[in-house]
Amino acid sequence: MIPGENLASIKGFMINKLKYSLIGSPLPSTSLAEERLNKVRALAAFSPDALSSLAYANQEIYLGLLVAGAAGLSLQFPIALAITILLGIVALSYAQTIRGYPSGGGSYVVAHENLGVLPGLVAGGALLLDYILTAAVSLTAGVAAIASAFPVLWPYRVWIALSILLVIMLLNMRGLRESGTAMAVPVYIFLFSYIAMLIFGLIRAAVLGDPVPLATTAPPPIEPLSLFLVMHAFSTGCTALTGIEAISNGVPSFKPPEWINAQRTLIVMAVLMGFLFLGSMGLTQYFGVVAGEDETILSALARRILGTGLGYYLVQFSTLGVLAVAANTSFAGFPRVSALLAKDKYMPRQLFNLGDRLVFTNGILLLTAVTAILIIGFRGDTHALVPLFAIGAFTAFTLSQTGMVIHWLRVRESGWRLKAVINGIGAVVTAITLIVVGVSKFLEGAWISVLVIPALVYMFLKIHQHYNLVSRQLSMRGLPPSIRPYPKQRVVIPVSGVHRGMVDAVNFARSISDDVTAVYIDVDPGPDEEELHHRWNGWFPDIKFVVVQSPYRSIVTPLLQYLDQVDLERNDGQQAILVLPELIPAAPWQEVLHNQAADQIKKALLFQRRQNGFQRVIIDVPYHLRK
Amino acid sequence: MIPGENLASIKGFMINKLKYSLIGSPLPSTSLAEERLNKVRALAAFSPDALSSLAYANQEIYLGLLVAGAAGLSLQFPIALAITILLGIVALSYAQTIRGYPSGGGSYVVAHENLGVLPGLVAGGALLLDYILTAAVSLTAGVAAIASAFPVLWPYRVWIALSILLVIMLLNMRGLRESGTAMAVPVYIFLFSYIAMLIFGLIRAAVLGDPVPLATTAPPPIEPLSLFLVMHAFSTGCTALTGIEAISNGVPSFKPPEWINAQRTLIVMAVLMGFLFLGSMGLTQYFGVVAGEDETILSALARRILGTGLGYYLVQFSTLGVLAVAANTSFAGFPRVSALLAKDKYMPRQLFNLGDRLVFTNGILLLTAVTAILIIGFRGDTHALVPLFAIGAFTAFTLSQTGMVIHWLRVRESGWRLKAVINGIGAVVTAITLIVVGVSKFLEGAWISVLVIPALVYMFLKIHQHYNLVSRQLSMRGLPPSIRPYPKQRVVIPVSGVHRGMVDAVNFARSISDDVTAVYIDVDPGPDEEELHHRWNGWFPDIKFVVVQSPYRSIVTPLLQYLDQVDLERNDGQQAILVLPELIPAAPWQEVLHNQAADQIKKALLFQRRQNGFQRVIIDVPYHLRK
Repeated sequence: MIPGENLASIKGFMINKLKYSLIGSPLPSTSLAEERLNKVRALAAFSPDALSSLAYANQEIYLGLLVAGAAGLSLQFPIALAITILLGIVALSYAQTIRGYPSGGGSYVVAHENLGVLPGLVAGGALLLDYILTAAVSLTAGVAAIASAFPVLWPYRVWIALSILLVIMLLNMRGLRESGTAMAVPVYIFLFSYIAMLIFGLIRAAVLGDPVPLATTAPPPIEPLSLFLVMHAFSTGCTALTGIEAISNGVPSFKPPEWINAQRTLIVMAVLMGFLFLGSMGLTQYFGVVAGEDETILSALARRILGTGLGYYLVQFSTLGVLAVAANTSFAGFPRVSALLAKDKYMPRQLFNLGDRLVFTNGILLLTAVTAILIIGFRGDTHALVPLFAIGAFTAFTLSQTGMVIHWLRVRESGWRLKAVINGIGAVVTAITLIVVGVSKFLEGAWISVLVIPALVYMFLKIHQHYNLVSRQLSMRGLPPSIRPYPKQRVVIPVSGVHRGMVDAVNFARSISDDVTAVYIDVDPGPDEEELHHRWNGWFPDIKFVVVQSPYRSIVTPLLQYLDQVDLERNDGQQAILVLPELIPAAPWQEVLHNQAADQIKKALLFQRRQNGFQRVIIDVPYHLRK
Repeated sequence: MIPGENLASIKGFMINKLKYSLIGSPLPSTSLAEERLNKVRALAAFSPDALSSLAYANQEIYLGLLVAGAAGLSLQFPIALAITILLGIVALSYAQTIRGYPSGGGSYVVAHENLGVLPGLVAGGALLLDYILTAAVSLTAGVAAIASAFPVLWPYRVWIALSILLVIMLLNMRGLRESGTAMAVPVYIFLFSYIAMLIFGLIRAAVLGDPVPLATTAPPPIEPLSLFLVMHAFSTGCTALTGIEAISNGVPSFKPPEWINAQRTLIVMAVLMGFLFLGSMGLTQYFGVVAGEDETILSALARRILGTGLGYYLVQFSTLGVLAVAANTSFAGFPRVSALLAKDKYMPRQLFNLGDRLVFTNGILLLTAVTAILIIGFRGDTHALVPLFAIGAFTAFTLSQTGMVIHWLRVRESGWRLKAVINGIGAVVTAITLIVVGVSKFLEGAWISVLVIPALVYMFLKIHQHYNLVSRQLSMRGLPPSIRPYPKQRVVIPVSGVHRGMVDAVNFARSISDDVTAVYIDVDPGPDEEELHHRWNGWFPDIKFVVVQSPYRSIVTPLLQYLDQVDLERNDGQQAILVLPELIPAAPWQEVLHNQAADQIKKALLFQRRQNGFQRVIIDVPYHLRK
């Protein structure tokens, strides 16, 4: 159900009006038809996360090696080569997953089915974390790209990132099934501008052949070049691989033959990623590019190749564009995985509810909130966020690949040996990378991810246990078919005075019971209650009027005590139920002017756990004020 | 009623436990006995606000004159003399008020009785503002005194002020009727240390006779000495008079003969104020004392007379002490005036409720919140707060004195002419001062007070109008004594499934009606509802089962529409009421794991304003989960 759905109240109506103008009118469930994507649109839909990883992976490798000066920076290309090989292995592994799970093989599904519940939940937790960090890192990196072009924006990075986050959230609340088309534009602009830039740079390098030795541009080393430093740079660079699994989750969205089209798209994507990554890292090293403060290395490279002209600004804007689209993919993935987990009772049920616009509203809101907290907490600094990032992704990779090995051993279809070996290599390589990443970046922030994933798994299990306990408690099994009849009612009405708001309540009480008592809780002893009693008898002579003293001026506690005490005294199997006259003010602002005793009585009764007998029934008789 | 009073729930229990450990166990109303004060304790109870005004008045006069260099500072004593004369006039006027209103003549009461509703409300608003500013200014000035002694504290002034505010709030929540004793200690320490210091300084001046010409110590003038500058310094110095009215509010607290003891205490207080003010200002000028940055002028004077030794620190701590006690007087006054206004229906009724500890809890909380906002908003800077201050106090003075003139003209007791003249002079002088203050400090912040007082009066009138409208709407007048009988019930139960939580609800519905329908809102069409229907019929064969489609996946709207539609179709004078089965989780954290549809249905029904017929009755049947 949707928050603020209450169409009846004035407040609710105004909230809805605002909501619909922002996110559009509700859509009926029948609109939930499937729309298939061709390869061109599928590439645009599934690749932005993977392709845009370039923007922060390059930067992280650069920053990691910079401290070792020219000697460090001269390892940029070799590390890029190593990561590209890893990319090839992971891509090949996921091509297998596409073949094995044509109905969509997300890490959670594959690990859950093949490795069991716990690995599945670990993969699920890792995936959720990965989606959150993709959103946060993509936004901060995108803002860094644009702030490199316009340094005046640098101090406002957090606010810009949050604004873009808000826009993406609203777009997703509207429902983004047009994704293939609308989102394709920035992706292809990015691809064309980057490919053109790199080819231009490569031609220039080939024709002019003017390499710049890093020794002349790099700052002096602060640290010696060590194995740890290289491992560190490699592991931060591994963030380049995040997002590569997206296609394997979305196989059913492809036009038939689904798995073949998906595999081909994956291969095209991997080749493009490799080219962009190797090309940009190679040229950075070849031209000896070094970035100043407040500039990304990609921006410095673009400035070097294209000059600070129109081409350069196009590249920077297209970087922001593709990163925003990448952040957007989290808004498709996170709510879907949450809904899957919620359906299996591992996350709150509300995450499974489709909203007005047929999207998982609560999942979108949750992702937005957590992403905003990360952006604010880490002050919009990509470099501070990245250490948290790769852990989630590589945990999911490893579990998913391991799951695939088990899958092939189980199904044993033709060629299963080769397939198992390929996934096995993928599993081993990603597991090693996971360990390298975990060790080399533990103190910088990876420990947060290492703690968060088990915490999430614990939460999943607690939630699961709760839902199971609830359904066991609610089971009708063992209940006798003839259910004991509900005893006759004895009704108590708490009274604040003799006024019109009482009339409906008294009449309703009369209509369901012959035993009605009005109770006045007296917080301020004086002559008033005598007069009240007199007036009450004048209007409602058939209803007993009882005064209960409240020396501590509380309304709720004496009322509850009175109810329990009368039940005990009578001991006739009956028990008192409460009829509550409730005044409803005409406008929301007026609510602060009333004591809201009714609300407090309701809450107290609702949560009062009684040892024997039924829970007390509470009957609300509203009386609306008209002005 | 007290927030969080719900003793029944676990959460409520824990909150109460924390609350009682901070503010003590509840007190019965019978403890509200009156305790009379002798003059020594009364002076300590009512004077701190007035006496402590010294701490900021001196400072403001000094800062106001400093810009004109030595020529400006040489006017310190003349201005102090003028203000002391004003003090005498105001004290004399209030001595009359004590005589005229022996039952306690606060400005609100006097203006309301003698001048009418609107002037009374203006006085009430001015008084509330004055109490708030007394709390804020006393705290910031007290912190400035201590930060003058320990300059390392200077950057933390806001936090220190807020901490003291919190302590004062908690003490007042416990109830501070011990005020006379516990609060007397800092007041008398302040009096003795200041009087001793001034006498020591005066003797030194008389014996040694070493005046320091201001020309040798004062910085060069920034502005020429102008009439406006002098008026400005005078009007800021008028804050010295704030708090002088306190005794006239509290006459009934004195031992009999009340008004005589009160008058005598007032005279002693005025003499002490005059001595402290004239003495400190005179010595400051005589010794040519000038304060550095980050030090108050009083601190510089004390350092000059006593050296930076034990005596100096005693004076600074006693300044903080008396100012904290002064802030505390607002915590007695503000809630009492709010409660008075609330009793007359000019402020929300909750402000009139006595809390657990027989104090006006809500008033204390409100004052704390507003004071904290002021301290934070003005960054703990006394000098920025003072321009807001005198407006409220002098508005209340003027209205109260004018009211007294009318009072004497009305009662015409012996000597009424003289009394009227004295109060008349008081009214005229305070009115002139009010205008001087308003004009000379308008742009610096007085405009805020000038806007706030009418805004408060408008709010009072709106609230009054609302409460009057409500009582007119609730009046039984004109209602026929034989009230139309409540129609027979038709009951609808919204159903989420066949489970134990349903059993009590169905049985209760059966017990009050023969016409019960179970309604299932189907948000996800499929084969499930057939099976559900089958299971329902197995368990509850006598209850009709209806499926309502919800194409927009909402629960509330289709349910409301169904209820209205069936009422319309049947058109038999009956109308459907709702029986809501509600699951209550065993622990608060579990609440997030449930959809809370019951809550939303209740809210929607409660606020649904129906054109004809009664409001719908809502019946809550709770079912408690045990784990």
